[in-house]
Amino acid sequence: MRARHKPWADEYLNKNKDIIEPEPKQFKGNWKSLFESEKPIHLEIGTGKGQFIVGMAKQYPEINFIGLEVVKSIIVSAVEKVKETDIHNVRLLNENAENLSELFAEGEIDTLYLNFSDPWPKNRHEKRRLTFPAFLEQYKAIMKKSGQIILKTDNRGLFEYSLTSFSKFGFVLEDVTLDLHAEDDPNNIKTEYEEKFSAKGLPIYRCVAKLKS
Amino acid sequence: MRARHKPWADEYLNKNKDIIEPEPKQFKGNWKSLFESEKPIHLEIGTGKGQFIVGMAKQYPEINFIGLEVVKSIIVSAVEKVKETDIHNVRLLNENAENLSELFAEGEIDTLYLNFSDPWPKNRHEKRRLTFPAFLEQYKAIMKKSGQIILKTDNRGLFEYSLTSFSKFGFVLEDVTLDLHAEDDPNNIKTEYEEKFSAKGLPIYRCVAKLKS
Repeated sequence: MRARHKPWADEYLNKNKDIIEPEPKQFKGNWKSLFESEKPIHLEIGTGKGQFIVGMAKQYPEINFIGLEVVKSIIVSAVEKVKETDIHNVRLLNENAENLSELFAEGEIDTLYLNFSDPWPKNRHEKRRLTFPAFLEQYKAIMKKSGQIILKTDNRGLFEYSLTSFSKFGFVLEDVTLDLHAEDDPNNIKTEYEEKFSAKGLPIYRCVAKLKS
Repeated sequence: MRARHKPWADEYLNKNKDIIEPEPKQFKGNWKSLFESEKPIHLEIGTGKGQFIVGMAKQYPEINFIGLEVVKSIIVSAVEKVKETDIHNVRLLNENAENLSELFAEGEIDTLYLNFSDPWPKNRHEKRRLTFPAFLEQYKAIMKKSGQIILKTDNRGLFEYSLTSFSKFGFVLEDVTLDLHAEDDPNNIKTEYEEKFSAKGLPIYRCVAKLKS
């Protein structure tokens, strides 16, 4: 996601440490203490401007949400969105997906969301796709055994790649949907991208991947 | 597939025993002797009017093909199509998919094709879908360990169901394609249905399922 450079971003983020945790690594294995709650933790990788995570947090107060977003000028918008509400079950981290095991302990995450991740369509960029085996390895390490990964995308190539990658890695696929909005599920919280693509009548693909029990 | 009743079908099939084998069960474990060849055997379940299997047999003379079709008045058209050519690597069986293990021995089949199978969209008909676990069990029993199932369909619901069903059963998915003809593979032999749907610009879904090695 591209965004204008925001020179005031650092200061803004510093002022909102209750929403964006500046030193997340110290909470590895201990996120429940930060939330002061035993509720399950759901993690979104690539939170963008935060529409999904804020919508989810409102809809599911019984869950604590953590959103990772690597681009500072974008995560600022997500912080703003959290501040506009009175929800307290969201934390945002200005981190990338490569250091997940430095951020979370084994089995700490119940559900992991990959929403409209960068498709990296060129073969030589395969390693950057968030369903490349090295990433799946990391997800598996921090997920509960009974946990799940929920992927949504409008990108056909990324979806095809992901189905194959999940399956080869040993995940079991459930609830594969090739046109999510054909069903019009009122509980589906849309990301900014999803709203845009879906409005154009383009199909949204979704699947749920679980570890084999 | 619906077809007009053909009262002359029995007589016609009886006259063409070199193409349609009247007593297939006696060849269980012994199909290579019928073909008088050690070539790998590929099996299409639901051959319909035979466009796919005849096209494949022409394109791959190094493979022997067996096509199952339960509707007599339809398999007649497939027999006609084989007769129009001078190929000898196709046999047709007027059988249904429920008795596969009476027809084939363990590991006898290299590749299995499910082309545009009846989607049976109602939940109460799930057991009739050709990717219902009981069918997968049968395919596994007659497939080589290194074999594969190649599924093509225009039906979104059947495809979604099949991806999940394959994956839960322990098959690994490869080459998942959500718009087969976007790539325009000159080696792809189209079925009658496929030609029709694809001409309308509708997406054709395809996947390959393999046993975990």
